[in-house]
Amino acid sequence: MNMIIRSSDIAQWERFYRANFINSLTAYKPAVLIGTQNGEGLHNLAIFSNVFHLGADPALIGYIQRPIGQSGHTYTNIKETGYYTMNLVHEEIVEKAHYSSARFDKGVSEFEETNLTAEYIDGFLAPFVKESKIKFGLEFVQEIPIELNNTIMVIGKINVVQIEEDMVESDGNIDAASAKIVATLGLEKYMQVGNFIKLPYANVKGK
Amino acid sequence: MNMIIRSSDIAQWERFYRANFINSLTAYKPAVLIGTQNGEGLHNLAIFSNVFHLGADPALIGYIQRPIGQSGHTYTNIKETGYYTMNLVHEEIVEKAHYSSARFDKGVSEFEETNLTAEYIDGFLAPFVKESKIKFGLEFVQEIPIELNNTIMVIGKINVVQIEEDMVESDGNIDAASAKIVATLGLEKYMQVGNFIKLPYANVKGK
Repeated sequence: MNMIIRSSDIAQWERFYRANFINSLTAYKPAVLIGTQNGEGLHNLAIFSNVFHLGADPALIGYIQRPIGQSGHTYTNIKETGYYTMNLVHEEIVEKAHYSSARFDKGVSEFEETNLTAEYIDGFLAPFVKESKIKFGLEFVQEIPIELNNTIMVIGKINVVQIEEDMVESDGNIDAASAKIVATLGLEKYMQVGNFIKLPYANVKGK
Repeated sequence: MNMIIRSSDIAQWERFYRANFINSLTAYKPAVLIGTQNGEGLHNLAIFSNVFHLGADPALIGYIQRPIGQSGHTYTNIKETGYYTMNLVHEEIVEKAHYSSARFDKGVSEFEETNLTAEYIDGFLAPFVKESKIKFGLEFVQEIPIELNNTIMVIGKINVVQIEEDMVESDGNIDAASAKIVATLGLEKYMQVGNFIKLPYANVKGK
């Protein structure tokens, strides 16, 4: 049975119930590990789902940084060094990737704590996740503060990509499903994804 | 075999190959039909995938509006009326939803062309998609121009939600998989999604 929920209801909900509901309302999001290092070379790794395509030419990717509190090393490292990596999560590394979200003590590298392996590619100045099958390095280009809720949109330009050759189809599409890349739903769920249907650029029928 | 692709390579690629590759690099995105109407009540319906969660309290959703050219009625209607709806796409309406992206003549309603049904819910001033199982109405609150590539981040506050009661789990999570909500990959692919694993809030081990 359909039910109607109004903003006044949502405002009164218990905090975690509301977070779960609103975070899952747009359904599926990417599961991305962001790798950084600070000026002393200490690594950081954190999982993000609010990552989105901003444009293909130039190739720009955005992510939403939550308000900086005790955590937020991803953001401070990006600001300090100017570089970061995004590493897609596949089924075999889901638990390790999720564990990166625990609040470790300061000075601890999430790479070590999660047993994911830091690797450097092509001289790029931030660590990648060796186990990830689709990963790219970004150069910080702009941050846009969103004053409504004290978040920040962080924009990066793609500098380098590492991917297995046979995952790239002849038209440039990436076969994420055969690489067993997962999607996220809400804050706690990781989802298996399978190919379904490919629909070419839509033209008006009968024209 | 792993290959390295640099930004200089990407810049030289053929336009559609590059768009496919960059659009699928972050893997899965939501598939959302945005419903609007103009000041005369003419409906518009368009599919978007660059939709993202901005915050739960207040409940804010963002989307990226591409540069406004000949199309862009979604954006102009939002600016004219202040209201819009987001309607999640499930497996049974994928073809109709995708067809909303064809370039119809001015003055045509995509609801009629796609055979999706406009409905009004709870006095909200923009049309919903009756066939959608998870849908919500948004009030426009802010737009942020992204000068880097002439796109716009459009931010809305959730005003009303319609959802089937049994899709909402006891902790507030929405069971999008059983509703057969699809994800998108790149510009042309719609993906089936199944439940995989639920991992609770991560705590540091051994503490």
